[in-house]
Amino acid sequence: MAHIQVPENVPGIRSLVMFRPETGTHLYALAQALLRGPSSLSPAERELIATYVSHRNECMFCMSSHAAAARCLYGTEKNTVDEVLKDLQQSAVSDKLKALLYIAGQVQVSGKSVSQQDIDDARAQGATDDEIHDAVLIAASFSMFNRYVDGLASYTPTDANEYAAMGVRMAEKGYVTPPAPKGE
Amino acid sequence: MAHIQVPENVPGIRSLVMFRPETGTHLYALAQALLRGPSSLSPAERELIATYVSHRNECMFCMSSHAAAARCLYGTEKNTVDEVLKDLQQSAVSDKLKALLYIAGQVQVSGKSVSQQDIDDARAQGATDDEIHDAVLIAASFSMFNRYVDGLASYTPTDANEYAAMGVRMAEKGYVTPPAPKGE
Repeated sequence: MAHIQVPENVPGIRSLVMFRPETGTHLYALAQALLRGPSSLSPAERELIATYVSHRNECMFCMSSHAAAARCLYGTEKNTVDEVLKDLQQSAVSDKLKALLYIAGQVQVSGKSVSQQDIDDARAQGATDDEIHDAVLIAASFSMFNRYVDGLASYTPTDANEYAAMGVRMAEKGYVTPPAPKGE
Repeated sequence: MAHIQVPENVPGIRSLVMFRPETGTHLYALAQALLRGPSSLSPAERELIATYVSHRNECMFCMSSHAAAARCLYGTEKNTVDEVLKDLQQSAVSDKLKALLYIAGQVQVSGKSVSQQDIDDARAQGATDDEIHDAVLIAASFSMFNRYVDGLASYTPTDANEYAAMGVRMAEKGYVTPPAPKGE
C-alpha cells in the first residue's frame, strides 16, 4: 500500500499525479518535452536512457514501463533494450549511445561523478552538446521520478502484460495528457 | 567551465535553462508549484527541505542559493537554516518538520530508503498526506536539480554576496519567470 492515500489500483506515478495535479502537470510536460520533443536522439534512444537509469535505481515500476515503451519504439530491434540492461558494453547500440548511457549512469550516482574524460569520450563518438545535455537531464529527471514513485511506495504491478500495454500507450501517445485528478 | 556551451558567467541552473528553454520552462514551473504554490508547509520550510537535500548531495550552487532564499524567508529566525545543516536533531525546527526533513534525507539516498516507520513517525508529529507528499517530491526534485547542475558542471559562484542577492530575488519573485533563452 502506498504511504499516502492515493487512488487505489492506479499504478506508479499516475496515482501520484492524480493526488497532486498542481505538480503532476509539470512533471508530465517535462517528460513529454524531454522524451518526445525535438531532439537528434530518437524517442527510442531517450526511453532507453530512462530505462537504464531506472534499472540502476532498482525502480521496478519506472524500469518496467519505460523498458516496455522502448521495446515498442525499437520495433524489430527491441532486443536492444534487454541487451543494454544485461551488459551495456557488449550491447548492439552505437558507440555514441554507449558513451551517453555511460554518462547517464554516472549522473545516477551523482552529478559530480561525470568527468571531463566521460564528456570527451562522448564527443569523440560524435555526441553533440544538445545530446550530452539531454542525456544528463533524462538521467537527472529519472533520479527524481524513481525517488518519487518508490519514496511514496506507489502501486507497482507485477504482471508483465500490464507493462506491455502501458508501453504501447506510452510509445503511441507519449506524456501529453496527465491522468485526471482525484474526483474527476 | 561547463561541459557544454552555455552562456558564460550565468550561474547554475539559469545557464542550463537558457541553453534548453523547452525543458527549462517546465523545470521552473515545477519549482514554482512545489516551493511557492498553495501548501500547509510555508515557503521557508519548503526552501529548507530543498537546501537540506542539496547539502546532502554536496551541490554547492543549489545549497548556497536555496539556503540564501530560506534565510530571507525565515527572517528573524534565519539561523534556523544553518542550525539544521549543522545538526538536524538539535535544531530549533518543530518535531513535525524534523520528521519531514528526515524523510527527505532518506529520499536523497533512494526512494526505497523511506520506511513505514519514517512515515508513522511523521504522522505521529502531525504531518498530513499532503505534507508527506510535498517533502518527498521536493527531495526527489532536488535529487534531479542537483544532478543537472553538477552533471553539466555549470558555473558555481564562490562569492557569498552573490548568493545573498540571489536569495532575495528567489524569496521575493519565486520561480515564475525562467531566464530568457540564448540569443534573446
